[in-house]
Amino acid sequence: MRHVRFRDPAGTVREGEWTDDDTVVFGGEEYDPAEVDVLAPVNPSKIVAVGLNYEAHAEEQGMDVPERPLLFLKPPNTVATHNSTVTLPAGKERVEHEVEFGVVIGEQCRNVDAADAEDVVAGYTIANDISNRDDQRQEQNWVRGKAFDNACPLGPVVADPEHVPDDASVELRVNGETRQNSSIDDFIFTVPELIEEITAYMTLEAGDVIITGTPAGVAPLEDGDHVEVEIEGIGTLEHDVIDPE
Amino acid sequence: MRHVRFRDPAGTVREGEWTDDDTVVFGGEEYDPAEVDVLAPVNPSKIVAVGLNYEAHAEEQGMDVPERPLLFLKPPNTVATHNSTVTLPAGKERVEHEVEFGVVIGEQCRNVDAADAEDVVAGYTIANDISNRDDQRQEQNWVRGKAFDNACPLGPVVADPEHVPDDASVELRVNGETRQNSSIDDFIFTVPELIEEITAYMTLEAGDVIITGTPAGVAPLEDGDHVEVEIEGIGTLEHDVIDPE
Repeated sequence: MRHVRFRDPAGTVREGEWTDDDTVVFGGEEYDPAEVDVLAPVNPSKIVAVGLNYEAHAEEQGMDVPERPLLFLKPPNTVATHNSTVTLPAGKERVEHEVEFGVVIGEQCRNVDAADAEDVVAGYTIANDISNRDDQRQEQNWVRGKAFDNACPLGPVVADPEHVPDDASVELRVNGETRQNSSIDDFIFTVPELIEEITAYMTLEAGDVIITGTPAGVAPLEDGDHVEVEIEGIGTLEHDVIDPE
Repeated sequence: MRHVRFRDPAGTVREGEWTDDDTVVFGGEEYDPAEVDVLAPVNPSKIVAVGLNYEAHAEEQGMDVPERPLLFLKPPNTVATHNSTVTLPAGKERVEHEVEFGVVIGEQCRNVDAADAEDVVAGYTIANDISNRDDQRQEQNWVRGKAFDNACPLGPVVADPEHVPDDASVELRVNGETRQNSSIDDFIFTVPELIEEITAYMTLEAGDVIITGTPAGVAPLEDGDHVEVEIEGIGTLEHDVIDPE
C-alpha cells in the first residue's frame, strides 16, 4: 500500500491510499491525484542525508568513497511538495538535482542494530536533494548549500516496504530527458547500516526521513524546468523550477 | 521579563515568569525554581549555529576568522533542559563545552534586513553547544560532532530583549571554576547581521534559535561535572554530565 496525505476539494487534510491504478482513495471517495493538493507525506523533525553513497557519483564529484557514511542535515524548511514550484536560491550559478531514495522512520528510536533496522522503518518515499554548489563548495558545513528553503521536494507517498523491490530502479528526468538512472542495490552503505550508524548518535522520531545519496548524473536545474523523480514501487515525484534571476 | 516553561507540581505545563528575585510565577501561584521541572524554553524546528564568532576562540582552534558566518545545524534531538543530566556520546576522547548566547525567533520570517532584525527577535536564551571533537575533526559536516542527542542544553528562560544589556557578560563554570568568560560585544558578526545572512537562505520559524558562537576557553567535559552557563540579564543554565565510559 502507498499512503498519501492530501487536501480534499473542501480543503480538509486526509490520509488516504494512492492505489496501484493511480487513484487516491479516502473514506469511500475516489479522487484523481492530479486534482487534489498532495501534501508532504510526513512532517519530519529532521532529514538526515547521506553523501557519496554510490561509487559512480563519488567519481563524478572527484571524491573518494568514504570509510563511513558522510552525513549532513536538511531541516524542515527544506521540504517542498509534489506538484509544487521550487524557487531556487537567487544569484547562484549552479544548483543541481539529486534523486534520492527516502527511508521514513515509523517510531522513535535510538541505538538500533542493523539486524533490527526494519522494525523502525515505516516505508519509503522519494526526494530530490537540491544542491546549491556555489555555496556548498565554499562551506565547512553544507547549510547554504543544502538547507535552503525548497531544497528537498519529498513524496508523493510513503510506500510500505513490501511494495518496493530490493533492486528498485531510481530515475530522474528533466523536461522528459533522463539525467540519472540507477538502482538502490548500488548503495555503498545499505539502509540497515545507515540506520545503525545514525541512531548511534541521534534519536530518530516517527516521520523523520533518511535520504540515502544520489547516483551519477547530477546536473544543473534551470528556470522553467519540469522535474520527474521516479522510484520503482513508490511512484513519481514531480515539481517545477523557477530561477528568480 | 523572563519567560519560563515548566511543569507545576501536578505535572501541568505552564508558561510563567521567572522574576528578578528568582521566583517562578504563574496564575497567582509562586514556585521555587529549584522545585519545578523547567522545560526547554521553546521547541525549535531547528537551531542554526554559528562557528568562530569570537576572535580569541578562532585563534585557540587554529582557524582564521571567516569572511562570512560559518553556519551549522543542531536539530531538535539536541535540546536538553535546565537542571538535566546530559549523557555524552560513548567512547569519545574529547567532548567540550561551548557557552553560547541564543537568539529566539518570534515569528516566521525570510529575507530580513539587518536593519529590521529586531522585529523578528522574541528574546534571548542560553545554550551550551556541546561538541564531540573526535568526530567533528574528521567530518565534512559536523553531524556526529554537533548534532548528537543532548548536544544543546538550552534555557532556562527567554529574556525579553530589553532585559539584556548590549555588552552582556557570558560565563561558563565547571564545578564552580570559570572556564569561559567574555562579552557579547566581542562578536565578529552581530545578531542583526546573522539574521540577515541566515534568512537570505532559509525561513526561520517562531521558536527557532540562533546560537551565536563561543568565546575562548573551551575544554573537555568529564563524568560527574556540574556545568553552569551564565549570561548577564538572562540567568544561569545548569546541567550535570555523565560520560558513559
